[in-house]
Amino acid sequence: MLGSGFIARFYADSLHAQRRVDRIHRVYSRTLANAKRFCEDYQLDGYTDNMEEAINHPDTDVVLIALPNHQHLEAVLASAKAGKPVLCTKPLGRNAEEAKAMLDAVESAGVFAGYLEDLCYTPKFLKAVKSVEQGNLGRILWTKSREAHPGPHSDWFWNKEFSGGGAIIDLGCHCVEISRNFIGKQHKPMEVMCWADTQVHPIDAEDHAIGLVRFANGAIGQFEVSWTFRGGMDLRDEVMGTEGTIWLNSFLRTGFEMFTTGLGASYVAEKSESNSGWLFPVGDEAHELGYPHMFTDMFDALEKGTEPRETFYDGYVVNAILDAAFLSAKSKQWEPVLL
Amino acid sequence: MLGSGFIARFYADSLHAQRRVDRIHRVYSRTLANAKRFCEDYQLDGYTDNMEEAINHPDTDVVLIALPNHQHLEAVLASAKAGKPVLCTKPLGRNAEEAKAMLDAVESAGVFAGYLEDLCYTPKFLKAVKSVEQGNLGRILWTKSREAHPGPHSDWFWNKEFSGGGAIIDLGCHCVEISRNFIGKQHKPMEVMCWADTQVHPIDAEDHAIGLVRFANGAIGQFEVSWTFRGGMDLRDEVMGTEGTIWLNSFLRTGFEMFTTGLGASYVAEKSESNSGWLFPVGDEAHELGYPHMFTDMFDALEKGTEPRETFYDGYVVNAILDAAFLSAKSKQWEPVLL
Amino acid sequence: MLGSGFIARFYADSLHAQRRVDRIHRVYSRTLANAKRFCEDYQLDGYTDNMEEAINHPDTDVVLIALPNHQHLEAVLASAKAGKPVLCTKPLGRNAEEAKAMLDAVESAGVFAGYLEDLCYTPKFLKAVKSVEQGNLGRILWTKSREAHPGPHSDWFWNKEFSGGGAIIDLGCHCVEISRNFIGKQHKPMEVMCWADTQVHPIDAEDHAIGLVRFANGAIGQFEVSWTFRGGMDLRDEVMGTEGTIWLNSFLRTGFEMFTTGLGASYVAEKSESNSGWLFPVGDEAHELGYPHMFTDMFDALEKGTEPRETFYDGYVVNAILDAAFLSAKSKQWEPVLL
Amino acid sequence: MLGSGFIARFYADSLHAQRRVDRIHRVYSRTLANAKRFCEDYQLDGYTDNMEEAINHPDTDVVLIALPNHQHLEAVLASAKAGKPVLCTKPLGRNAEEAKAMLDAVESAGVFAGYLEDLCYTPKFLKAVKSVEQGNLGRILWTKSREAHPGPHSDWFWNKEFSGGGAIIDLGCHCVEISRNFIGKQHKPMEVMCWADTQVHPIDAEDHAIGLVRFANGAIGQFEVSWTFRGGMDLRDEVMGTEGTIWLNSFLRTGFEMFTTGLGASYVAEKSESNSGWLFPVGDEAHELGYPHMFTDMFDALEKGTEPRETFYDGYVVNAILDAAFLSAKSKQWEPVLL
Ligand SMILES: NC(=O)c1ccc[n+]([C@@H]2O[C@H](COP(=O)([O-])OP(=O)(O)OC[C@H]3O[C@@H](n4cnc5c(N)ncnc54)[C@H](O)[C@@H]3O)[C@@H](O)[C@H]2O)c1
Ligand SMILES: NC(=O)c1ccc[n+]([C@@H]2O[C@H](COP(=O)([O-])OP(=O)(O)OC[C@H]3O[C@@H](n4cnc5c(N)ncnc54)[C@H](O)[C@@H]3O)[C@@H](O)[C@H]2O)c1
Ligand SMILES: NC(=O)c1ccc[n+]([C@@H]2O[C@H](COP(=O)([O-])OP(=O)(O)OC[C@H]3O[C@@H](n4cnc5c(N)ncnc54)[C@H](O)[C@@H]3O)[C@@H](O)[C@H]2O)c1
Ligand SMILES: NC(=O)c1ccc[n+]([C@@H]2O[C@H](COP(=O)([O-])OP(=O)(O)OC[C@H]3O[C@@H](n4cnc5c(N)ncnc54)[C@H](O)[C@@H]3O)[C@@H](O)[C@H]2O)c1
Repeated sequence: MLGSGFIARFYADSLHAQRRVDRIHRVYSRTLANAKRFCEDYQLDGYTDNMEEAINHPDTDVVLIALPNHQHLEAVLASAKAGKPVLCTKPLGRNAEEAKAMLDAVESAGVFAGYLEDLCYTPKFLKAVKSVEQGNLGRILWTKSREAHPGPHSDWFWNKEFSGGGAIIDLGCHCVEISRNFIGKQHKPMEVMCWADTQVHPIDAEDHAIGLVRFANGAIGQFEVSWTFRGGMDLRDEVMGTEGTIWLNSFLRTGFEMFTTGLGASYVAEKSESNSGWLFPVGDEAHELGYPHMFTDMFDALEKGTEPRETFYDGYVVNAILDAAFLSAKSKQWEPVLL
Repeated sequence: MLGSGFIARFYADSLHAQRRVDRIHRVYSRTLANAKRFCEDYQLDGYTDNMEEAINHPDTDVVLIALPNHQHLEAVLASAKAGKPVLCTKPLGRNAEEAKAMLDAVESAGVFAGYLEDLCYTPKFLKAVKSVEQGNLGRILWTKSREAHPGPHSDWFWNKEFSGGGAIIDLGCHCVEISRNFIGKQHKPMEVMCWADTQVHPIDAEDHAIGLVRFANGAIGQFEVSWTFRGGMDLRDEVMGTEGTIWLNSFLRTGFEMFTTGLGASYVAEKSESNSGWLFPVGDEAHELGYPHMFTDMFDALEKGTEPRETFYDGYVVNAILDAAFLSAKSKQWEPVLL
Repeated sequence: MLGSGFIARFYADSLHAQRRVDRIHRVYSRTLANAKRFCEDYQLDGYTDNMEEAINHPDTDVVLIALPNHQHLEAVLASAKAGKPVLCTKPLGRNAEEAKAMLDAVESAGVFAGYLEDLCYTPKFLKAVKSVEQGNLGRILWTKSREAHPGPHSDWFWNKEFSGGGAIIDLGCHCVEISRNFIGKQHKPMEVMCWADTQVHPIDAEDHAIGLVRFANGAIGQFEVSWTFRGGMDLRDEVMGTEGTIWLNSFLRTGFEMFTTGLGASYVAEKSESNSGWLFPVGDEAHELGYPHMFTDMFDALEKGTEPRETFYDGYVVNAILDAAFLSAKSKQWEPVLL
Repeated sequence: MLGSGFIARFYADSLHAQRRVDRIHRVYSRTLANAKRFCEDYQLDGYTDNMEEAINHPDTDVVLIALPNHQHLEAVLASAKAGKPVLCTKPLGRNAEEAKAMLDAVESAGVFAGYLEDLCYTPKFLKAVKSVEQGNLGRILWTKSREAHPGPHSDWFWNKEFSGGGAIIDLGCHCVEISRNFIGKQHKPMEVMCWADTQVHPIDAEDHAIGLVRFANGAIGQFEVSWTFRGGMDLRDEVMGTEGTIWLNSFLRTGFEMFTTGLGASYVAEKSESNSGWLFPVGDEAHELGYPHMFTDMFDALEKGTEPRETFYDGYVVNAILDAAFLSAKSKQWEPVLL
């Protein structure tokens, strides 16, 4: 496990739950104290502040990258060099160039590589995609994926150099890949139109953006991303087909409603903004966000020698689409997706 | 695994999923052909139509009972005799007498015993109970648990002798235990008032019932059960406390909505009545119904030598409450719960 | 208009809105100052603290009773004596005896009389009843009507002598009449089982009750009433038939959802408990609660010389059912409805 | 009343309901038989197939235009010439040029003119706008208004010459005006980016479009319009502000849910696609769509000599925005709004 922050803990919680067979052995973190704490919390075999060491350790069968965006490339290159299977969190790169370098590295090293796009593994999403594949919705015309919340928890997200951008890169990567799955990955993304602005936060990067991706078959994949949303974490997808419609709400309205005066308050859900009044918790957060099904697919694929549902190639396509979105937000024109 | 029917498959699907460590080794079924097919489908080590043989087989570490209600007692007694840990599906017995015999058997044999009350393990429920325990709702005044669908899939359910009753025993056992968890198991159930009727189906047993269970602390646990409901499977719980409210919808409104003309139709969800128009699938059915978390708790408890959340004693209390409900439906009076 | 309190204002707002033709002419209130303020607020012709005077005034074509429960009988008798059409708010009487006296009075005086049961006039309810009448749900098996909120706004509600009881008389009158409409008024209510308790408030009367009304055709009308609910005003109805299901939510979940940090806060909705966090306002409260459609039916019926949908006889049946409910709560037995 | 089609009947139903004081006197329709039937159905004073005659009739106090889009200009000019107050259905013109001509005509004639934008008068919308004006949402950042259904009922809608366009002009006019109200009409619309396509229907005009309108204060008003949506009529609005969020669902999820096997089927709601399975009727359709509140505002304003909430100027701005949207859909660039 590379990284010991927010997502590293989510991954560890998901892997070490429900009597799963796979175990994290050791953790790398820049700061030794963090690595140590993480190691203790999850009862790992060891920890280090040396990334190479963690990757090359003989007990490390698979490298799991949970580092900030600007560290993904380095970590993937090191894993490829070590000949170790590698799973990398989203977004793959800060841009398509980085993603392409990672893709090339794992391909030429011949190592298994999985793109940890959890929102393409939520149980709702998997079932919805199956319905679409069975033809229940006919030909897909339009999809909309929305991810919005009040803003990220760590400083580096707000720094374009570390993150590669704002809400577009952080949240748009999910939305774009969700749309690709619904529309069909065989359909090439052609061009992107995007509006982006910094409406609320004192940052350089955009905190709100809307984009349209036109695919070769005429379908449109819309993304709505924001760090300015109030009310919690809004995760909704919509699909329109000639024969039907799908609406998914993955977080704020899932059949769990609670009113409380606030007595005995505690953690409700990721990015929830309050702990009194009407609250909308989710049952098992990791599950609703797709982590268990994602790791199951990854390790099953690794064992069977097949490809996982979400590959580095997918991560690269996503980056290429987002590159076009960034361009479009500046040029105010539809920009071609360069693959 | 004893039984190869509907719930046996649900259990097997849940256990053999998500890279879990526990495995089913062999299956017993009355009909050898069914046992064989089940064995093949889940790639087990063996099958038999001899229950004792299955229980006593050296590879059998734990006995998992998925038989019709009238077979639970015999299977538990055999497991206790064999000194094997035993997990039994709901309801524990057809009545409190049977349940008490099972409880006594496992206690005197000193074997681990778990009551497979899955709906007390749904992720939503677990989180809701935690909120209640944290005091977010203050003192609990009333709970309502509702389970209703158009009627069961197998003939034996409709036969009082095999099942022990109709909707009350089949569905009421869930509702009563849900209420006990919310109100607090330390509060003794005192008396029950129940209305029951056979409104639609040509059966002896009741196909619809409403009951109120009064607990020692004044709280009321209401159950609503029906085999006459149209529209799918309605699983809803409500909790009222002095400081708050919880509403759970576990199946029909979980944030997944789909309209389809019916093209490419297929399985939507348990007891769903149609495959066109507006449909409300659930993401991962086994998960929403609590099976994975239930087995995790059971096997973790077994390994740690602790009690699971749901024990045979709980199953016995549930049966005692339902006995009072059956009596009340006839006497038209509040009937005491005899424990 | 007799009365100048909460419901009087709701009635006046509904009547003097949407360019309706009917006008309130004068108001009676026990306290002259209140009568005066009401008169000014709604620009009426006059006010008085003498009930007889208001009733007998030549401009008074119709008497509208919006007084506390213990005043209904006196006001109806006076109206009957004056030979004036009379509309009385719910509940008709504090008990069936009072209601019967009112019914007899208007019948022997031959005056038009309407029972202002607004929740049987909400647009949703009217459409739902129509669906039931068209047979969309087949034979009705069970209905549930629920009204629950944190407790009433005026002192007299809490005093059994003035009100005739607690949540049962205040809220149960709505629920019972809703069930009668769904099940069909031609089916006689036979007996009632009711649990009631004073769980939270320091009052004599019950603040929470659940009841079952059995009708001659075997259908069950369930009511759930509470002054202990947290989270706003919970108005929900459910209907189960052999061919279908109806779920109505009239107040807390009507397609209007709002999150606010609380900036610029103001009135959200009747009995709403907070003005920050997630709120669920209704669009046009009077409309959602049925007032406009109720008065339209009343005045149309009066002009056409027909009966309104809700008559004094209906009010009397409701009181008789609630009388049985009060008895049952004490006797802990099913009690017959005496008509 | 000019026109006797779909919307003319909706208007007449709304005006002649709930004991409202205003009455339709006579109707004009191109086809005399239709005019006659309309006259009889609503018990009017007379009918004609001569528009001028209807407008100039001495009993005509107000002209109500419910004609196809290409007839609005002629009808408005004739009303202005006759010096009669005029209310015109949406969209005002087929383009801004037509709308400007109408605006100029009523202004120079000095007649009262109202723009019948019903969706800016739904009770939910009115309350939501009030919340926004009270500051409950802080500064408005983004609004989204969506109107989508399977396609219109009359042939002329599909003919660009009669209608002025497809889904953009038919549905976009609602969405754009909804956004203007939320963002604040004082903020100038600056430029528009729009994607449009003909994805399903065999027509020249677009059957699906997404647009972004950028306002002078940086807020974005998004519209989503489609004649290719399956599942009924989807009317949803969303508002994001620095301090809060509003979600409105005006038609498909309003707290009324019904399952039916289809027995005794009948009309459910405008553009509903089925009458079995899970259905989502609305209580009082005209009310949910804003007609009663719209006419109340119009006639109140007329009597008081004030401006209605929605004026011809508003209709003109809407047309100007949509003109830019049409241009943008072709040029694939942000196009300025020319006012
Ligand atoms: N749904 C998801 O899949 C999801 C959710 C959140 C984050 N993520 C991704 O996970 C990655 C990490 O995000 P996070 O939310 O865990 O962030 P975080 O800030 O919580 O944790 C980042 C970790 O990296 C370490 N770190 C920070 N800067 C570093 C540097 N310069 N060199 C080495 N280590 C450094 C931190 O100490 C910390 O342990 C990001 O790529 C993010 O996009 C994915
Ligand atoms: N949510 C839940 O936990 C849940 C859900 C469904 C069923 N159940 C319980 O599981 C048990 C089985 O129900 P099911 O739905 O699987 O039923 P089923 O009819 O689908 O399967 C029952 C199995 O038992 C076998 N069987 C039937 N009669 C038998 C007999 N006389 N002797 C031996 N074997 C016999 C059948 O062949 C079949 O393999 C019941 O106790 C039921 O209450 C629990
Ligand atoms: N949904 C409904 O239809 C609905 C809702 C609320 C109340 N109500 C009914 O309306 C009636 C009034 O309730 P409310 O909520 O307006 O109460 P309220 O306390 O707000 O107003 C009652 C009015 O009666 C006057 N009043 C009080 N005691 C009096 C007395 N002893 N003699 C004469 N006048 C007296 C008060 O001054 C006040 O003007 C009750 O019967 C209640 O059940 C109906
Ligand atoms: N929500 C709304 O406000 C709403 C809803 C629907 C329609 N509308 C608007 O109402 C207007 C009419 O739409 P509709 O749905 O009633 O259409 P419709 O086709 O149902 O009715 C149109 C009426 O105009 C008549 N007509 C058609 N062509 C004509 C012509 N060339 N000359 C004279 N009369 C002609 C028809 O006979 C019919 O009486 C349109 O402008 C439409 O955009 C508004």
